[in-house]
Amino acid sequence: MSDLPRKIDIQEEGPREGFQFEKGPISTRRKIELIDSLSDTGLREIQVGSYVNPKRVPGWADVEDVVAGIHRKPDVRYTVLWLNERGLQRALAAEGVFLKGSITTAASETFMKLNQNRGFEDNMKVQHNQVALYKQHGIKYFRGSMMAAFGCNFEGDVPISRVLEQTEVVHRIADENGVELDILSLADTMAWATPESIKRVVGAVRERWPDLRITLHLHDTRGLGCANAYAGLEMGVDSFDSSVAGLGGCPFAGHKGAAGNICTEDLAFMCAEMGIDTGIDLERLLEAARLAEDIVGHDLPGKVKWGGSLDALRAKLH
Amino acid sequence: MSDLPRKIDIQEEGPREGFQFEKGPISTRRKIELIDSLSDTGLREIQVGSYVNPKRVPGWADVEDVVAGIHRKPDVRYTVLWLNERGLQRALAAEGVFLKGSITTAASETFMKLNQNRGFEDNMKVQHNQVALYKQHGIKYFRGSMMAAFGCNFEGDVPISRVLEQTEVVHRIADENGVELDILSLADTMAWATPESIKRVVGAVRERWPDLRITLHLHDTRGLGCANAYAGLEMGVDSFDSSVAGLGGCPFAGHKGAAGNICTEDLAFMCAEMGIDTGIDLERLLEAARLAEDIVGHDLPGKVKWGGSLDALRAKLH
Repeated sequence: MSDLPRKIDIQEEGPREGFQFEKGPISTRRKIELIDSLSDTGLREIQVGSYVNPKRVPGWADVEDVVAGIHRKPDVRYTVLWLNERGLQRALAAEGVFLKGSITTAASETFMKLNQNRGFEDNMKVQHNQVALYKQHGIKYFRGSMMAAFGCNFEGDVPISRVLEQTEVVHRIADENGVELDILSLADTMAWATPESIKRVVGAVRERWPDLRITLHLHDTRGLGCANAYAGLEMGVDSFDSSVAGLGGCPFAGHKGAAGNICTEDLAFMCAEMGIDTGIDLERLLEAARLAEDIVGHDLPGKVKWGGSLDALRAKLH
Repeated sequence: MSDLPRKIDIQEEGPREGFQFEKGPISTRRKIELIDSLSDTGLREIQVGSYVNPKRVPGWADVEDVVAGIHRKPDVRYTVLWLNERGLQRALAAEGVFLKGSITTAASETFMKLNQNRGFEDNMKVQHNQVALYKQHGIKYFRGSMMAAFGCNFEGDVPISRVLEQTEVVHRIADENGVELDILSLADTMAWATPESIKRVVGAVRERWPDLRITLHLHDTRGLGCANAYAGLEMGVDSFDSSVAGLGGCPFAGHKGAAGNICTEDLAFMCAEMGIDTGIDLERLLEAARLAEDIVGHDLPGKVKWGGSLDALRAKLH
């Protein structure tokens, strides 16, 4: 019927996104509780913290304690985020985390200037030097990251040629440093994507770099999260970022905190019902989603945690 | 790229669904205010009330006053719902409403027994007699309606052969009464559909009745509303029911009132961004969605009313 992949990988970003975004305070113990709960779901990768300035992101002031306190499962890759060399040093000091070197760019230079205070030229140099630093510290996994790949609040629609040009830049930086680009993340940072634009952009990148693995980072700010993920699946995309219960929020939209990343359990539900293997035990993931809601103390956007899974209904019937 | 239609029709069901579902009380004046606001959006069809037992559905005790009080636009078709002959008589007495004769069945006999207290055999007779009655009253538009077309909480997955068999029954009832079947609604009554099952079921019905127009009635209980609508669009479906702001709720799921029908403005936004004409002025529809939220006095599930349209962002940039 289509090119749906047989199996996909989901990178769970809920804890990192959520505890950064939520006003809190949320105790270290409860952060660990959520991550441990997620470790029991079959998820193979969980982003568990952010080494950022505690003055700017008070929700991650306890990142060292969280990362030290989680009960690791051997089949789960625990990843972390950092934004500068100080953060990298702290991440390097942590035990049992998987470090991914990011080569970050954007399809909108305006967004990059606003978000990172530099243009494409400068960014190329910065990324080049960072990859050299990552390599020096023994990091072996490299993820290209294209922000605003489907449009930009400050630049509008972005041409596909820009996505291709910046993907070329990412490749060049990897090549010049003699490292392999493992995956390219196409991020719908400000929720401009539609199913059709997902197909166009993924198709254009795939046509030029047929062997490059693509992962989609989607936001549900305008309600198209799952539709966009489905369009990605139709294009054979087999890797997605998502957040349990829809934890986290998008800082760019004037919404009521209800629409951040696409929701892990809704994505996992859709895949399971279409016969796509995610490795996830949906009922356990729904428990984790309800736990997330309990921890933050308010409703979170994911739907299946309210609607219930179909397998639970099927089980009652037999 | 695919069989996306160039233009689609949206049947707005928000007022009827919402004022039935909401605890209220909501004044007649405010109900009319929402319908009038929707009349200004370019929507070509709005379901404006339900002639039901006021003891069972107190939210529609004032249906006569609402229907009499709306300010009609010539390009808008105002439809109503009724469930029995008493309701039909009340609907017939109303001025300026477009009456659709429904030929209702389900792909799950268990659901039909629970919902309507009769099996397939009895239903066929009931529907046959109703169509005769509709014809006698001069009703010329007939909509087949297949509930639980994608699965059933009480029967589980339903075979496509059942959908085909019951579509055959609907055709037979129309034929025997010498009336034309204008459209067939495939309803995902209990939110069992996935994009792939939408394609399979629509494809199977289309294969057998290539000239039959199909409309999709989708619920967002499990977060797949827009993804399922997109799959329908990919199959060339050019007609959808939806509710402004996501008004209304699904009585079958243990959720927090957050997931009824798919949301009109999110669907209209997705279509507009993909170049599919809905006839709708999205900014006006977003105003109506915010008005709906104001009227019911709590958050409603639609996302674009929070996230904002992309055309509004584009306009700021130029």
